[in-house]
Amino acid sequence: MEKVSFYSLVKNYKAVFIDSYGVLKNHEGLIDGVQDSIEYIRSLGIPLRVLTNDASRSQEQQVKVFESIGLEGLKKEEIITSGMLARQFLELKITSGKIAYLGTERSAEYILQSGLEHIPISDIDLEDIDDISALLFLDDEGFDWNCDINKTVNFLRRKNLPVVVANSDKYYPVSNNDVAIAIGGISRLVEYTVDQKFIRFGKPDTQMFMYAYDELNKTGNFEKKDILMVGDTLRTDILGGNKFSLKTLLVLSGNTRADNVDLKINSTGIIPDYIADSILN
Amino acid sequence: MEKVSFYSLVKNYKAVFIDSYGVLKNHEGLIDGVQDSIEYIRSLGIPLRVLTNDASRSQEQQVKVFESIGLEGLKKEEIITSGMLARQFLELKITSGKIAYLGTERSAEYILQSGLEHIPISDIDLEDIDDISALLFLDDEGFDWNCDINKTVNFLRRKNLPVVVANSDKYYPVSNNDVAIAIGGISRLVEYTVDQKFIRFGKPDTQMFMYAYDELNKTGNFEKKDILMVGDTLRTDILGGNKFSLKTLLVLSGNTRADNVDLKINSTGIIPDYIADSILN
Amino acid sequence: MEKVSFYSLVKNYKAVFIDSYGVLKNHEGLIDGVQDSIEYIRSLGIPLRVLTNDASRSQEQQVKVFESIGLEGLKKEEIITSGMLARQFLELKITSGKIAYLGTERSAEYILQSGLEHIPISDIDLEDIDDISALLFLDDEGFDWNCDINKTVNFLRRKNLPVVVANSDKYYPVSNNDVAIAIGGISRLVEYTVDQKFIRFGKPDTQMFMYAYDELNKTGNFEKKDILMVGDTLRTDILGGNKFSLKTLLVLSGNTRADNVDLKINSTGIIPDYIADSILN
Amino acid sequence: MEKVSFYSLVKNYKAVFIDSYGVLKNHEGLIDGVQDSIEYIRSLGIPLRVLTNDASRSQEQQVKVFESIGLEGLKKEEIITSGMLARQFLELKITSGKIAYLGTERSAEYILQSGLEHIPISDIDLEDIDDISALLFLDDEGFDWNCDINKTVNFLRRKNLPVVVANSDKYYPVSNNDVAIAIGGISRLVEYTVDQKFIRFGKPDTQMFMYAYDELNKTGNFEKKDILMVGDTLRTDILGGNKFSLKTLLVLSGNTRADNVDLKINSTGIIPDYIADSILN
Repeated sequence: MEKVSFYSLVKNYKAVFIDSYGVLKNHEGLIDGVQDSIEYIRSLGIPLRVLTNDASRSQEQQVKVFESIGLEGLKKEEIITSGMLARQFLELKITSGKIAYLGTERSAEYILQSGLEHIPISDIDLEDIDDISALLFLDDEGFDWNCDINKTVNFLRRKNLPVVVANSDKYYPVSNNDVAIAIGGISRLVEYTVDQKFIRFGKPDTQMFMYAYDELNKTGNFEKKDILMVGDTLRTDILGGNKFSLKTLLVLSGNTRADNVDLKINSTGIIPDYIADSILN
Repeated sequence: MEKVSFYSLVKNYKAVFIDSYGVLKNHEGLIDGVQDSIEYIRSLGIPLRVLTNDASRSQEQQVKVFESIGLEGLKKEEIITSGMLARQFLELKITSGKIAYLGTERSAEYILQSGLEHIPISDIDLEDIDDISALLFLDDEGFDWNCDINKTVNFLRRKNLPVVVANSDKYYPVSNNDVAIAIGGISRLVEYTVDQKFIRFGKPDTQMFMYAYDELNKTGNFEKKDILMVGDTLRTDILGGNKFSLKTLLVLSGNTRADNVDLKINSTGIIPDYIADSILN
Repeated sequence: MEKVSFYSLVKNYKAVFIDSYGVLKNHEGLIDGVQDSIEYIRSLGIPLRVLTNDASRSQEQQVKVFESIGLEGLKKEEIITSGMLARQFLELKITSGKIAYLGTERSAEYILQSGLEHIPISDIDLEDIDDISALLFLDDEGFDWNCDINKTVNFLRRKNLPVVVANSDKYYPVSNNDVAIAIGGISRLVEYTVDQKFIRFGKPDTQMFMYAYDELNKTGNFEKKDILMVGDTLRTDILGGNKFSLKTLLVLSGNTRADNVDLKINSTGIIPDYIADSILN
Repeated sequence: MEKVSFYSLVKNYKAVFIDSYGVLKNHEGLIDGVQDSIEYIRSLGIPLRVLTNDASRSQEQQVKVFESIGLEGLKKEEIITSGMLARQFLELKITSGKIAYLGTERSAEYILQSGLEHIPISDIDLEDIDDISALLFLDDEGFDWNCDINKTVNFLRRKNLPVVVANSDKYYPVSNNDVAIAIGGISRLVEYTVDQKFIRFGKPDTQMFMYAYDELNKTGNFEKKDILMVGDTLRTDILGGNKFSLKTLLVLSGNTRADNVDLKINSTGIIPDYIADSILN
């Protein structure tokens, strides 16, 4: 793959998909200079979509978080979260009953707008679960892991029903050194314990790229060859972008660094089309 | 889930996606009565698409195989194979060099229409691989497993390049009792040996459903809720259809049988919306 | 395999290894009649060893638990726990520094008798970990999963050191319907998150059978063909007993039941030499 | 871990276990100077055992191969192969019927000395398998992969019986650059296809260490702390040696090299007690 500058590369495309964490922001907040990059993209007349596996916030809430760290001008329709895919699944497939969930009340509200009642796992009575029609892994916060993970396991041992994971990430960064296990990781523990197959949404699954692609095409006429995918993580952004047949740019401002990029590409076999230090120039 | 008749269910949809093996045909040939079912679907004015993980034949060749076993009237544009996704990937992502492959010459020809030269693994000189730009797992036939699987491993140890698997199935039936390992299984052995991550196409991955959906929408205006997915296998047809948010019908004429359907649904956690004996009534 | 009675089978052996949960006791306490079975074994002059993956209690504590539910006469040297293997590993391999652990203080005390200081993960200062020389997963109780699992992950991201799992079970039963995730399951979540390889002790690993075998041979002269392994779980008791080349008896008083035994044997490929309803006759 | 010289380290032990490939020999033959190392060990009066996952040759045949490449003085009882564990299993557990196998006639002969008839998969009639009582994966040579791997799958679909893998390695080196898939890898493909659980012998499984330990103790009185395990591969030699609670020495003359040793230790979490360049000084 070629080492390029983002500014010179992006000019050749009609649209750009961008990962959030590690490209636009990091644990300290907005990456310095990203506001300029966004304005440069806008100046070229290129539409962008931010693709994030963070299912804990709605599009509006994501925009507010970006504003709070200093990035202005993102519009809610430019944000695509894996939670939106979970919401679509629930709307189309689950048309009656209550939806049980692990996560915060806030994350549940944005996803569960289909009119169905939602109930945290902690409030379920395991002797009275006939009216529950789906289970949703939303967020690693908002519940007691000791109690509620075991309760979820026992719930699934009693009732076979659709299980949806709104964020397939293993973990997310919380500081320069440290990470926290994401709901995707917790869902793996439950899946492994009950030995069943859950439905997961989020990169690298191409369904998220398809969702962004379909939304984009409501605003114009874009082909896959017209779109550049930009991300910092081989196993999510680049693998998914490649599989969806987009050209992919790996940036070295997040998970993948200049000192380990060659090793990671060789050991995973996941190969971006281009590499750049960041989106800053 | 409800036990239904296919004839009464399909009336409620505007389009139908149908798996091939286990629904339309089996190892003995066309399932008796399927011609009537297809004509019934046509009489309702409902478009259909056949979704198959068989990447060894083009749309035209698939139609001819159906004709040879007695099913008339399928059109080539009604066939969607996982190989078509592989072809799209190669056309958009691999624009120079030669493409190495494991499979038959025939399967290679239909997929590699992008003008790039293709070369079977057996013809590669491992000391001269600079101009090879991708590797394609196509078909379990057409090569010597003893020699060429090891040669593929050593090729991948020397060169890091995109690897595409055109059929993700583990195996396929060859008689009432027996199966043959599919190229998807062989690719797993190579992936496990070199410890890398290949790009796989085919159900249950939703990209195949998306491809069929996009093709269908070139002929009219269809939403996901308008489409019924019909298949005989939980882990491919039903899991993929569910995840793509289609309503799913499991038929008991193939992999899943009346005497194991409850067990399989409970042990996998993959739940169809409906169950029918077959598509025959 | 043959269906037999335990009483008639065990007469043919010189020693017997017995799993605890599902054979001797269950969630309600001692299985009715087990006292007689133990006395029958003793009357034959056949030594027995109880092999358990419960690492939370010492041999003495295990004997007391058996007494508290009504089983008299077990001696501490007849109990072999997976924790004893972890203890042996630590004594032989970790000769300096402190040992960090997840579990209860009680379980830590019995295992960490080597004179090394032990410290719960919750008390570690992640900025001061130079003197910690090993990490031990002991027990699912005694710590806050929300905090301490993440802390364990971040500890392992900072320091590469031997990690030992004293109980490899996924979960254990807590009532007729319900289970609780065991420390073996929690360790899998951490292993999956940090992508490293931990050292696990407990059935089906044959090291536990070897430990019991060596201990038994300190009291006499026993060959493998002289010993019968009795258990209720295919994936631990029977797989491990088979691999250690013991004759194996599956009893249907615990995890495996008369109504699913054929299915489980066929779907796992783990085949006991004999089957009995229980050890009660 | 400490960087040491083998000569100065081995003096502190009463016995030494040594891996074969990558320590004593490589694809070019005997490693220069190894004869001196063996004589040095002998001069110290320290017994040695060679632990190898190569199940294709008996102890006598292994000694002859060592002689043919120039290493004199190894005795057959000093060789421990994973095949010897498979043989023990078959002798103790399979007492009637015929044993089907994949491998060469030569490898079958040394393992199947129990008096039972053995039959290559290629000679089996799938309609007449009642008298076959076990299946053995022995060696990657001696059969047609295209035919016989599929035949093995269909055999296992018809009959549930004990399946033993005599060498758990994924692959083995055949030249400086190239490898060949070992029978352990092929067995994984079959295991994955039929979704069953086979019994595997060989490092890192501690049963092989136990076998060597028991054999050694027939000649004297050795404790685990008296024995040093020497190997070139973290995932087999070092992981297994550690788990069996031996002190472990990683040498950099084979799979693990000076330029990747830190990376491999950090990425796997498998930590040797000592590191040396080779056993040559």
